[in-house]
Amino acid sequence: VAEGWLVARQGAGTTVAAAAVANEPARRAAPDADRVLFDLRPGVPDVAAFPRARWLAAARRALADAPASSLAYGDGQGRPELRHALARYLTRARGVRAGADAIVICTGVAQGLALLCEVLARRGAATLAVEGFGIQAHRELAASAGLGSRALPVDDDGAVVGELTREDAVLLTPAHQFPLGMPLAPGRRLEAAAWARREDTVIVEDDYDGEFRYDRQPVGAMQALAPEHVVYAGTASKTLAPGLRLGWLVLPEGLVAEVTEAKLRADGGSGAPDQLTLAELITSGGYDRQVRRARLAYRRRRDTLVAALRRRVPGVEVSGIAAGLHAVVRLPAGLTEDDAVARAAELGVAVQELGRYAGEGATHAPALVVGYATPPGHAFGEAVSRLCLALGARAS
Amino acid sequence: VAEGWLVARQGAGTTVAAAAVANEPARRAAPDADRVLFDLRPGVPDVAAFPRARWLAAARRALADAPASSLAYGDGQGRPELRHALARYLTRARGVRAGADAIVICTGVAQGLALLCEVLARRGAATLAVEGFGIQAHRELAASAGLGSRALPVDDDGAVVGELTREDAVLLTPAHQFPLGMPLAPGRRLEAAAWARREDTVIVEDDYDGEFRYDRQPVGAMQALAPEHVVYAGTASKTLAPGLRLGWLVLPEGLVAEVTEAKLRADGGSGAPDQLTLAELITSGGYDRQVRRARLAYRRRRDTLVAALRRRVPGVEVSGIAAGLHAVVRLPAGLTEDDAVARAAELGVAVQELGRYAGEGATHAPALVVGYATPPGHAFGEAVSRLCLALGARAS
Repeated sequence: VAEGWLVARQGAGTTVAAAAVANEPARRAAPDADRVLFDLRPGVPDVAAFPRARWLAAARRALADAPASSLAYGDGQGRPELRHALARYLTRARGVRAGADAIVICTGVAQGLALLCEVLARRGAATLAVEGFGIQAHRELAASAGLGSRALPVDDDGAVVGELTREDAVLLTPAHQFPLGMPLAPGRRLEAAAWARREDTVIVEDDYDGEFRYDRQPVGAMQALAPEHVVYAGTASKTLAPGLRLGWLVLPEGLVAEVTEAKLRADGGSGAPDQLTLAELITSGGYDRQVRRARLAYRRRRDTLVAALRRRVPGVEVSGIAAGLHAVVRLPAGLTEDDAVARAAELGVAVQELGRYAGEGATHAPALVVGYATPPGHAFGEAVSRLCLALGARAS
Repeated sequence: VAEGWLVARQGAGTTVAAAAVANEPARRAAPDADRVLFDLRPGVPDVAAFPRARWLAAARRALADAPASSLAYGDGQGRPELRHALARYLTRARGVRAGADAIVICTGVAQGLALLCEVLARRGAATLAVEGFGIQAHRELAASAGLGSRALPVDDDGAVVGELTREDAVLLTPAHQFPLGMPLAPGRRLEAAAWARREDTVIVEDDYDGEFRYDRQPVGAMQALAPEHVVYAGTASKTLAPGLRLGWLVLPEGLVAEVTEAKLRADGGSGAPDQLTLAELITSGGYDRQVRRARLAYRRRRDTLVAALRRRVPGVEVSGIAAGLHAVVRLPAGLTEDDAVARAAELGVAVQELGRYAGEGATHAPALVVGYATPPGHAFGEAVSRLCLALGARAS
């Protein structure tokens, strides 16, 4: 409450959110794309930094080694080369307890969630709990599969998982709450895992930007707390590029066959050349190096953004910045979210209001969700400068 | 009737098929993969002939030229580079009337059909007519979208489209009926197009192997007869490799936006690197050269297969061989489909019975559907020799 984020909820303690209604940043239309000179919306990494030469070199090595059968129809689960590479990588880098047999390759977290909802609904599930701030498209995916959703409040320790009751599954962003940015506290993780074991339910761990943590020890995946109840969802969309359409689920043993079947029905399985290439990139160490390079670059951008805002814009507060590719920027007094978005747009800067990620009826301090990963490096300084102007800085 | 294929249907003239019930060859499980030494099932090309070096060279050129934005999230319709390349290619090679704006990239014909059924069902469609011999998985896709299916009889001129009445759409294989192999006769094409215009319905033209015609002038796509009522579906699964997961729909203008939305919901759009690479391969002429090479190789295989069967196995008849990657082999008298499949399996040869593509209650002469594209070149002679043995040839 002291930080200005929290709102009192009638009779239920202090929370941030009620119900989450927001738009998926990834799926946004860009109606004024011509006028967007600087894109500071969250969700998209710096695609100009995609390591094209390294990707091509890995593709060459991968295709040289691949058996011809890798180019035939697959079984839907994904290439074994990639599943083995990911099992080792996720164990090492994210603390996931994963064997290659537990992994299903998909096109990203959204497809992974859709496949899982389809399987859970077929098993009789009726409700998916979600975080009170989050991505509207995820709720829509659940609804398409016939699952209702119920929002959990979010406080400084992340989602209030103690409010979970009879839901069939819960979708969490434990490493870096989207969009508010706090990690799910250790006690909450244990509490959620205990709930899932007690009720025999499923936790979906959306680790969309888990590789990007700057200021503390990495926050590992919570999947290891209850591998038989947690579905870990990861993606190359932030570490490499969304256009690869490569993501992965690490599943409890009992869900693998059904999710594989659902994937096969959805698209016949993901394409082989890019799967083989990513496998080679991971195995050769190139993926780790790319993550380190990107982490360093994004940390610098974050520092630039935070320093500029604090120096030039009186009254802003920046939070959620220990990790990830975006920050939450609380607006100076008197500035509404809509005004801030409009002023930024006038300067050619696209930003998003926090409100689009918050549920109907929830109140929160006016803020923007500022993605600092998208602009190419040469444009980033100007993007930040214009954002500061939009928020009330004097021209420098 | 004289050829032994046709069966009399009570009160309705002479037809081959009643209702189609079959398994998708592409999606088959391979339970005895260890024992399959020679794979003569239909549906999979020779993946050992995939032009890896040319593919990689095209990938290098494509990634060098691609804008960074091509690696961000897409709009679901597919990369413009590939849609433009396909529009030109399909116009030239298949007689399709296509602009890049009318194309949606998907992962293959099956996904394309699934997306389309979803859109048609949302518009209120209730029934998809299918051919009386065909792929069971296509019916299942329609059923998943809530569409019932009704089978059209098939005779020597292809599907009896004169029996179309109030169905909302029809799925046809005009260039090469799957699996029987005859083209849809010109009169039938006109009849189907007239039906679609009169009833304001949709024809789905599955051009799964339209590039492979050997003995006559190519049979063009029928889409040009009624571009506002035909959805043309093509794929790289036969010309290059199924593992690419690249196919395309050419759509009437009024369907493009909704199918694009459905694709976006299904998987976020297809992956960019492989789309860009295929675009470059087409534009540079490499795709045409690959199709010509493959056509020559498969034609030789077909000739080898037909000659061996005719020489060594008394009583077989081979049909459906003017095009495509499979033949229908009518069994010698006294041999059942199950026996033939079992005998072949004992010799390490996988084949499929025609019955799996025929509807319940339909009768047809016992036959196998023999795919001659799958084995690598060095194994093809032995595969054919063992098939002949399984069908009663004396060891040579």
